[in-house]
Amino acid sequence: MIIIGERINGTRKNIKEAIEKKDKEFIKKEIKKQIECGAHYVDLNAGIGKGREREKEDIKWLIETLYEVGDYAVSIDSSDPEVIEFGLSIVKSSDKIINSINFEKEKIEKMIPVIKKYPESKIICLTMDENGIPYDYRKKVEIADKLIKILNEVGIKGENIYIDCLVQPVSVDTKNGIMFLKALKEIKERFNVKTTCGLSNVSFGLPNRKIVNKYFLALCIYEGLDSAIVDPTIPDIREAICLAEMLTDKDEFCMNYITSIKRGYF
Amino acid sequence: MIIIGERINGTRKNIKEAIEKKDKEFIKKEIKKQIECGAHYVDLNAGIGKGREREKEDIKWLIETLYEVGDYAVSIDSSDPEVIEFGLSIVKSSDKIINSINFEKEKIEKMIPVIKKYPESKIICLTMDENGIPYDYRKKVEIADKLIKILNEVGIKGENIYIDCLVQPVSVDTKNGIMFLKALKEIKERFNVKTTCGLSNVSFGLPNRKIVNKYFLALCIYEGLDSAIVDPTIPDIREAICLAEMLTDKDEFCMNYITSIKRGYF
Repeated sequence: MIIIGERINGTRKNIKEAIEKKDKEFIKKEIKKQIECGAHYVDLNAGIGKGREREKEDIKWLIETLYEVGDYAVSIDSSDPEVIEFGLSIVKSSDKIINSINFEKEKIEKMIPVIKKYPESKIICLTMDENGIPYDYRKKVEIADKLIKILNEVGIKGENIYIDCLVQPVSVDTKNGIMFLKALKEIKERFNVKTTCGLSNVSFGLPNRKIVNKYFLALCIYEGLDSAIVDPTIPDIREAICLAEMLTDKDEFCMNYITSIKRGYF
Repeated sequence: MIIIGERINGTRKNIKEAIEKKDKEFIKKEIKKQIECGAHYVDLNAGIGKGREREKEDIKWLIETLYEVGDYAVSIDSSDPEVIEFGLSIVKSSDKIINSINFEKEKIEKMIPVIKKYPESKIICLTMDENGIPYDYRKKVEIADKLIKILNEVGIKGENIYIDCLVQPVSVDTKNGIMFLKALKEIKERFNVKTTCGLSNVSFGLPNRKIVNKYFLALCIYEGLDSAIVDPTIPDIREAICLAEMLTDKDEFCMNYITSIKRGYF
């Protein structure tokens, strides 16, 4: 299970402030915490709503700050293809993530040249298009199918394609959870690609969201989720990953579980 | 999700003592607690290892004690067909559970006449035979198939047949969890029957067993488990049932979840 640490995101108040004040120590601490808790990639989102040029400057600062902590693998997270391209040009390692593309015509046209420039990157692909996020799992799979074909055509291997079927809140429609899980299951069965999930939307509007997120994550892992964009410093998240992996035969001799309990991780 | 409350079991030290001392108040309290926490059936097991006649006497006492609390539905739990038959003869309601039969030749030959006498009972069927509990999920399904055929032949409807595929500890073999889940899934797909699970064996030999049990229960509910033999007074158990039901579209408007959080159930 690949963990993409989601904490460094400019839409979060304390991260926004740290970016504005260029508070390196705060950002470094946030990076360290996530790495210590098992993050394989550090997601960097510099979107604090001050325009493209400022976002480019800020993503550069975030990447440089990260390298002061260590040579960790990065996920460049932006809704702006130019920012992603700029960010990728600074990242040292070939092991990096583009977060994200989707099937909106204009977006994909802009992203394809960037992807071609960095064909070894992993790419998070959201199953949405001009009409937004589909409700029905079959529509989600349909969009995934189209995205995979386009990416394969420009030479991207399935192992670098990470489909995110975009879970919607169960508080809005109680079918939203299974719509995601059914899409995930079908994608794992039909295509030779990876999957990921920005988990927390499932619990939007509900009390005690962490408890909802952790059970949902466990169900996703059971259905073959390869990666998750999560906050690995939350004990509930570590618990769900560890338990779901053990119960689905991904923890030899239950050693990771036993060690995690001994160390008091959750 | 039908909850069969497992606390009144003569193999547990405090229950054994209560049975020996004929401590009605203790047993009544145990029954009340389980009902308050949502048990639909109260499992009664009078096996304290003192022979058949004593077990019959004790199951009679347990059933009578239960009726002093209320007219609750009962699951008669014994490895001895004679004790089960005797217990069933005392139970007032037709809504009762036989716990359990399996595919051992001698056992099933003795149980069939009992089942014929109480054809309206629900029957827990364990997927084991003379060779013990099979490891492979296909073998579990095979035994379930044979048991279902035999029961259908004597007039038992699928809706009253509760298959328990007997989960084995993941500490013994990390495939044991998915072997159970695969069997459960196939049984729900192939046969028109119900399923159940005596959950806690999955975590045997591991630390913090409750945490293992709760995630496993959630995965089972996701795969369509209809009922579980559990201790409903454990908050982890209520949590797993509530969350798994909400995430699989079995909690309209998330009302049960929201109410459970408000009431501090977990």
